[in-house]
Amino acid sequence: MRLQLATWQEVEAYLQRSTGIIMPIGSTEQHGPNGLVGTDAICPEAIAWALGERHDVLIGPTQNLGMAQHHLAFPGTVSLRPSTLIEVLRDTVSSLAHHGFTHVFFLNGHGGNIATVNAAFAEILSERSLSERSLGGQPNGDLQLTLFNWFMGRRGREIAKELYGDAEGGHATPSEVSLSWAAYPEAVKEAAMSPHVAPEGSAQCDALTFRKRFPDGRMGSAPSLACVEHGQRFLEAGVEDALEAYRAFLS
Amino acid sequence: MRLQLATWQEVEAYLQRSTGIIMPIGSTEQHGPNGLVGTDAICPEAIAWALGERHDVLIGPTQNLGMAQHHLAFPGTVSLRPSTLIEVLRDTVSSLAHHGFTHVFFLNGHGGNIATVNAAFAEILSERSLSERSLGGQPNGDLQLTLFNWFMGRRGREIAKELYGDAEGGHATPSEVSLSWAAYPEAVKEAAMSPHVAPEGSAQCDALTFRKRFPDGRMGSAPSLACVEHGQRFLEAGVEDALEAYRAFLS
Amino acid sequence: MRLQLATWQEVEAYLQRSTGIIMPIGSTEQHGPNGLVGTDAICPEAIAWALGERHDVLIGPTQNLGMAQHHLAFPGTVSLRPSTLIEVLRDTVSSLAHHGFTHVFFLNGHGGNIATVNAAFAEILSERSLSERSLGGQPNGDLQLTLFNWFMGRRGREIAKELYGDAEGGHATPSEVSLSWAAYPEAVKEAAMSPHVAPEGSAQCDALTFRKRFPDGRMGSAPSLACVEHGQRFLEAGVEDALEAYRAFLS
Amino acid sequence: MRLQLATWQEVEAYLQRSTGIIMPIGSTEQHGPNGLVGTDAICPEAIAWALGERHDVLIGPTQNLGMAQHHLAFPGTVSLRPSTLIEVLRDTVSSLAHHGFTHVFFLNGHGGNIATVNAAFAEILSERSLSERSLGGQPNGDLQLTLFNWFMGRRGREIAKELYGDAEGGHATPSEVSLSWAAYPEAVKEAAMSPHVAPEGSAQCDALTFRKRFPDGRMGSAPSLACVEHGQRFLEAGVEDALEAYRAFLS
Amino acid sequence: MRLQLATWQEVEAYLQRSTGIIMPIGSTEQHGPNGLVGTDAICPEAIAWALGERHDVLIGPTQNLGMAQHHLAFPGTVSLRPSTLIEVLRDTVSSLAHHGFTHVFFLNGHGGNIATVNAAFAEILSERSLSERSLGGQPNGDLQLTLFNWFMGRRGREIAKELYGDAEGGHATPSEVSLSWAAYPEAVKEAAMSPHVAPEGSAQCDALTFRKRFPDGRMGSAPSLACVEHGQRFLEAGVEDALEAYRAFLS
Amino acid sequence: MRLQLATWQEVEAYLQRSTGIIMPIGSTEQHGPNGLVGTDAICPEAIAWALGERHDVLIGPTQNLGMAQHHLAFPGTVSLRPSTLIEVLRDTVSSLAHHGFTHVFFLNGHGGNIATVNAAFAEILSERSLSERSLGGQPNGDLQLTLFNWFMGRRGREIAKELYGDAEGGHATPSEVSLSWAAYPEAVKEAAMSPHVAPEGSAQCDALTFRKRFPDGRMGSAPSLACVEHGQRFLEAGVEDALEAYRAFLS
Repeated sequence: MRLQLATWQEVEAYLQRSTGIIMPIGSTEQHGPNGLVGTDAICPEAIAWALGERHDVLIGPTQNLGMAQHHLAFPGTVSLRPSTLIEVLRDTVSSLAHHGFTHVFFLNGHGGNIATVNAAFAEILSERSLSERSLGGQPNGDLQLTLFNWFMGRRGREIAKELYGDAEGGHATPSEVSLSWAAYPEAVKEAAMSPHVAPEGSAQCDALTFRKRFPDGRMGSAPSLACVEHGQRFLEAGVEDALEAYRAFLS
Repeated sequence: MRLQLATWQEVEAYLQRSTGIIMPIGSTEQHGPNGLVGTDAICPEAIAWALGERHDVLIGPTQNLGMAQHHLAFPGTVSLRPSTLIEVLRDTVSSLAHHGFTHVFFLNGHGGNIATVNAAFAEILSERSLSERSLGGQPNGDLQLTLFNWFMGRRGREIAKELYGDAEGGHATPSEVSLSWAAYPEAVKEAAMSPHVAPEGSAQCDALTFRKRFPDGRMGSAPSLACVEHGQRFLEAGVEDALEAYRAFLS
Repeated sequence: MRLQLATWQEVEAYLQRSTGIIMPIGSTEQHGPNGLVGTDAICPEAIAWALGERHDVLIGPTQNLGMAQHHLAFPGTVSLRPSTLIEVLRDTVSSLAHHGFTHVFFLNGHGGNIATVNAAFAEILSERSLSERSLGGQPNGDLQLTLFNWFMGRRGREIAKELYGDAEGGHATPSEVSLSWAAYPEAVKEAAMSPHVAPEGSAQCDALTFRKRFPDGRMGSAPSLACVEHGQRFLEAGVEDALEAYRAFLS
Repeated sequence: MRLQLATWQEVEAYLQRSTGIIMPIGSTEQHGPNGLVGTDAICPEAIAWALGERHDVLIGPTQNLGMAQHHLAFPGTVSLRPSTLIEVLRDTVSSLAHHGFTHVFFLNGHGGNIATVNAAFAEILSERSLSERSLGGQPNGDLQLTLFNWFMGRRGREIAKELYGDAEGGHATPSEVSLSWAAYPEAVKEAAMSPHVAPEGSAQCDALTFRKRFPDGRMGSAPSLACVEHGQRFLEAGVEDALEAYRAFLS
Repeated sequence: MRLQLATWQEVEAYLQRSTGIIMPIGSTEQHGPNGLVGTDAICPEAIAWALGERHDVLIGPTQNLGMAQHHLAFPGTVSLRPSTLIEVLRDTVSSLAHHGFTHVFFLNGHGGNIATVNAAFAEILSERSLSERSLGGQPNGDLQLTLFNWFMGRRGREIAKELYGDAEGGHATPSEVSLSWAAYPEAVKEAAMSPHVAPEGSAQCDALTFRKRFPDGRMGSAPSLACVEHGQRFLEAGVEDALEAYRAFLS
Repeated sequence: MRLQLATWQEVEAYLQRSTGIIMPIGSTEQHGPNGLVGTDAICPEAIAWALGERHDVLIGPTQNLGMAQHHLAFPGTVSLRPSTLIEVLRDTVSSLAHHGFTHVFFLNGHGGNIATVNAAFAEILSERSLSERSLGGQPNGDLQLTLFNWFMGRRGREIAKELYGDAEGGHATPSEVSLSWAAYPEAVKEAAMSPHVAPEGSAQCDALTFRKRFPDGRMGSAPSLACVEHGQRFLEAGVEDALEAYRAFLS
C-alpha cells in the first residue's frame, strides 16, 4: 500500500496490523550521458512500489532530494545540505513516530546520502536518549531506524557482477541506469561515451573538482551496457533484497 | 520535460532555450474519508506533468512533504516544520540558480504551504539583497520566484463553483479529490460521510484542536461529490491556469 | 494597559480577568519621500495604545523590526530575515503562554510580515502538536494565535477609498503616512513627488530590483495626499477595527 | 534624530555627515513591586531620545525584548533566548553596515543582555574575519561595535551612590525605577515592600530558583526610594555619560 | 610538531613546507568495566603525537567530544549532537583553510563519529560548491578532507586478529583499551567481567535500549585481554598505518 | 580524578560522593612570539589536573577550541563561532545533567570566551525555565553553572603584579606564558620582541584590524619576562584560587 494513495482510515487500520513503514529516499543529480537525473530516487521508489503491491507493507512518499553537492557542476542537480536533510528526516520520523510507527526503514538509492542519513538517525536518537532520565529509566518509546541501500543488496550485486563485472563502477552505473529505464522505458537514452569505462576516483570534493575528475559525470562505470531487460532483473532482485532486509529489521 | 527523466545534457540544452522551471510542491496529510493522503502533492504533480508533456517547460521533482502540523492527529500525516521547509526551498533554489535558472515557479497544492513558501522566498532574497552593496550597485543576478496555487486558478474555480457550489469547502474538497482520482483511478475510495457537508472553521490551531473541530478531517466540504470525470476537467483547467500564470511570470 | 508601564503584580491581576494580549508588530523601512521609516511600527502601536487606554486590554511591547529585505537599497531600512523573526515570535509566544496567556493577537502594520508571522504560528504549533501524543490525547494547552493587519480593517479601508481612491496604493500609502503623522505631528514632512501616483508592481524581488522598479520607494501610492487630520480618522477607525477583531478572536 | 521619525532621504543625508548610530536595547521583565515591566527598555530609550534631540546623532528603534529567562516566573516577562537575540543583532548590524554605518553603539538598559550582546558582536565579526583572506589582506570594511550600559556611567553611578548608597542594589534599582518614572510620570506606582532592602544573590539560575531567592523580584535594592525628580537627574546624567562614551567610540 | 605547543611564527614557517595537518578526533564515553571514558580520544591523540614527534607533520588539538548518544545511559558519557559536531568541524576547517591549509586529515578513534564527520565534510563542501559559479568556473580553492579511523588500519587489524581473534569485538575492544593504557599506564584498571566475551548487536538505538543490550557497556569484546604491552604494539602499528594514509592523502 | 582516565563505574561511584565537576575550557590561538598556540587551554588544564590529583574532584575533558575570531589573521588560530560554542556547551551540560551532575564549574583560560560561555548558560537555563510551568511550580532540577577565569584569581593576580607590574598586559601575558611553560618545559621558546611592552587597545574588532593594532599578537604585555619557575608559582596559585572558588560554588 502506498501512503500517498491511502486514506487516513486505511493508515489507521494498517497500524493495527503493523507499525513498520518503508520510506524511499533518493537524489536529483546528474547520472552521466545516458542516465536520468532522477535515477537515485526512481530506483528505490520502483522497488518500494513493487514490494508494496505484492506485500502488506506501507510505502511512504519518496524523498526526491538528497545530498548531491559534488554533482552541482552538472546542470539539473539539486542538492540539500546535510544540515537540511537532517532536519527533513527528523521531522519525517517525528511525524511517523507520533502516529505509532516503530520501525522506519529508509530504502536508499544514493551513496552520497548514507553519512547524512545515519547522522540524522543519531540526531533523532540523541533527543530521545537525553529525555530518558526524566522518564524513570524506561526507553523513550520503541523506535527503530535503519537504512538499506538497494544497490548493496546481495541479489542485485550478483546480477551486476555477472552482467558488468568491473564496468559496474560507482556512479551512473549500468545497474541503476537499467533499473530506472525499466521503471520508465519511455526515457531510455542513447549517448556515445568515451572511454567505455569511466575513470575512477574519490567524490569527496567540491563540484568543479569533481567535474574535472569525471568530465561526463560517470565514475568508473560503463552505462552504455544498460538496457530495460537488465533493469527488470534488478527490479525483481531489489524487491527480494529489500523485503528480506525489511523482514529482518522488523524482527 | 520532466527533470527526473532527463539527462544533464538535456537540461544543459534546455537552459539555452529557457531559464524557467516549474516545481510542484504539495503535502502528505489526511484528506478526509475518501481523499488520498497524497492529494496535495498528486494534484500539482499531475498538472505539471501534463503541462510538461504538451509544452517545452521543464518540470522539477515534486516536494512531497509540506507544512501539515494541524493534520498530525490523523494517521499518515507527515509534516515539515516551517523552518525545515524554508531550508529545503533555500537549497532547492540555490541549486537551480547555480545552474542559471532565473524563473522558479512553484506550483502548489496545499494552502498550508503558502505562508512558509513566501517566507522562504524572503529568506532567499534577504541573503541576495544584503550582498548587493559589495556588488557595486547591481542586482545580485536575475532571480524571480513565485508561487501559484492550482486550486486558485480561475478556470478551476469556475468548474468547482459550477459543480459543487458551497460544498467545495476548504480542505478535502471535491475538486482536489476528483483531480487526484483522475491521476490515480485505481485509488478511488468509497466512504460514507456525515454530515454531507463538513463543518467550517479555522485551521490555525494545534492538531488535537483541529481534530475536535473537524472530526473526519474535512473542512466545509462534501467530497462524496468527487468523481474521476470531474477530475479530468480539473486537470485540463489546471494545465491552462498554470500555463497562463507561468507565461505571465516569464514575461 | 501597556505591559511596559505595568508592574508584574498588575499583570498577575490582569490574568485573573483576561488571558488575551495585543502585540503590535511593525517594520523599520523606507516609506517614500514623506513617510517615516518607522511608519509600520508606529501605526499599529498608536492604535494599540489608544485601544489599551479605552478598554481593559493588555498591550505588549512593539516589535519594531520586521521582514523588510526588499527595502534594503534605501538607507535606514533594518530587516530581520524570516528565520530570525520566526525565532523572535516563538520566544515571545513561549513566554506569554508560560504566564498563562491563551489568546495572542498580533496587530500588524506591514504586509511584508504576513507570511513570516503565519509561518511562525505554524512553527510554534508544530512543536505543540508533536507533543500531544505523550499528553494522552488532550490538546497541548489552549493557545490561540492570530494576525490582524490594521490596514485591512473594514472601517479604515472605507476611509482610504473615500479619501484617496486608487491613489492609496500598496506601500507608503497616504493612509499609513497620515496615521503615523497623527501619532507624531512633529514629524510631518514636506516632499515633492513625481509622478503624483507612483508605479505599481511586485515587491517579491531583491532590494536593487525593487529600487529600480520603485525609485523613490512608493508603490502605487500618492502620499502627498496625507495629512494629520486624515490620520486621526484612521486612528479612530483602526481602534474600532482592531477591537472588533480582537473581541471576535477572544470568543 | 530618531530613525523611526525620519525619511530615508534624511537618513541618506545624515550618512554624509556621520556614519555612527545609537541603538537602544532593553528587556521586558519584572522590576519588583513598583518598577515597570518595560524599565530596561524605557531607560536607554529615554536617554537616547533626549541625546538625539540635543545632538546630531541618529537614534535607531528600541529593541524592547532582551535575555530575561531568570525573570520568567514573574508574569509579564518576555524573554528571548541568547541564540535568538544573537540573530536579531546580526540582522540589525548587517542592515546598518549595508547602508554604510561604521559605528554602531548599543545603549543598553539590562545587565542580562551584556554577555549575549558581546557574543553577538563576536558572531558578526567571525563572519567578517573569515572572509578577509579572499579580500587580499584588507580588513573587511570598517565596522566598530560597542555596548554601553547606561547604569554603569560615571555620572549616574555617583548620583545613585549619593542618593541610595548600598540600597541601590542590582535589579529593580531605585535609579532605574526613578528614570523610567521620569519618562512616564503617569506610571508611577505605590507599593509596600518588605524588607526595605531586598536580599542579594546570584541571578545565574532558572526562573523558579530566582523567584525563591528573590520573592518580590528585587535584588538587593530598595526601589521605594525612587521618585520622578531623581529620575530627571538620572536622565541628565545618562545623556552626558552616553554622549561622552559615544564620542570616544567615534574617535 | 603539536600545534598547541607551537608559536604562530612556527606555524607560519610550517605552512611554507607543508599545507597538511592531522586533527585527532575522539569521544568521551564509557568503555566497559576496564576501559577509560577517554579511550576514543586518547588513542588517536597518542598515535598523532608520536607521529608528529617523528615526522614533520603538524598535529592539531584533539576534539575530545564526539557523537556518543547511545552511551548516555552510562555515567561519564558526554555527547555532542550530530548537528553540533558538524558546526564544530565546519568552524575548524574554515579556520584552517583561512590560514592556507589544504589537506585536513582527521584521525578518528570512534566509530560513532564516522557518519557525522562525513556529513560535516559534505556540509563544508556544499558551501564551497555553491559559490563556484560566481568564481568563473574555477574550483573554490584547494581543500581536501579525509577521515582515517586508526582502528581500521591494516597493521593494527592484523595485530588485533592475532592477539584476540573474534574477542576483539566492536566497542571497548581489547585493542583500544590496550592502546589507551600504553598512553596512560597509571590508569590501568582491573575489573571482573562476565561473560568473557560480551554480546553483539546493533548500536543504532537510544541509550536505555543500548544499555539493555549491553549491560556493562562492552559490545562483542573481551577487554580483559588488554595489557600495556599490547598497547605499545598498537601504538607503533597505528603510527605506521596513519602515516601511510596521510602520505597517500597528500599526494 | 580525570574523567578521561576513569571508568564509568568510577564515575558512578564518584556521583555518590559528589555531583560537582570541573570542566577546563580554553582556546587555540596565537599568543605572540614566544607564547604557545595552546596556552589558553593548557593553563586551565594544568591547574585542573593538579587540583584533581590532590583533591577528590572530577575533572572533565578540556574544550580546546574557543571563540578566537580576532586572532584569525595569525596562522594556527582555530576559532569557534559563538553560536557553535553555545551548542557545544549546551550538549556538554545536557549530558552531565543527565547523569546527575548538579554543579558544573567551567575553569576558563581565555577572556574571549567569557561572553559566549555566559550566553550559553542563559541558553541552557532558558529551556529549563520555560519548562517549569508544566512541572507544577517546582524548579527544573538542581543545576548550577559557573565560570571561573584562572587569570582572575586573587593569588595569581598578586603574583603577576609582583613579578610584572603593568607589563602583565592583556593577551600573551607573561603569567600565562609562564604557566604553559611550566606544564610543557620542552616547549619553552626564545624570541626577540620589540617593543618590550606591546601596545594596548581593544580586541573587539575583525582579525585584520586586530593584527594592525597588535602586529606580533601581544596586547600590552611583555612575555619575554616569562619563565618556567614563574609558571610553577602560577600553577600553585591557580590550584588554590580554583579550589577556593569551586568550594564556594558547591556550597
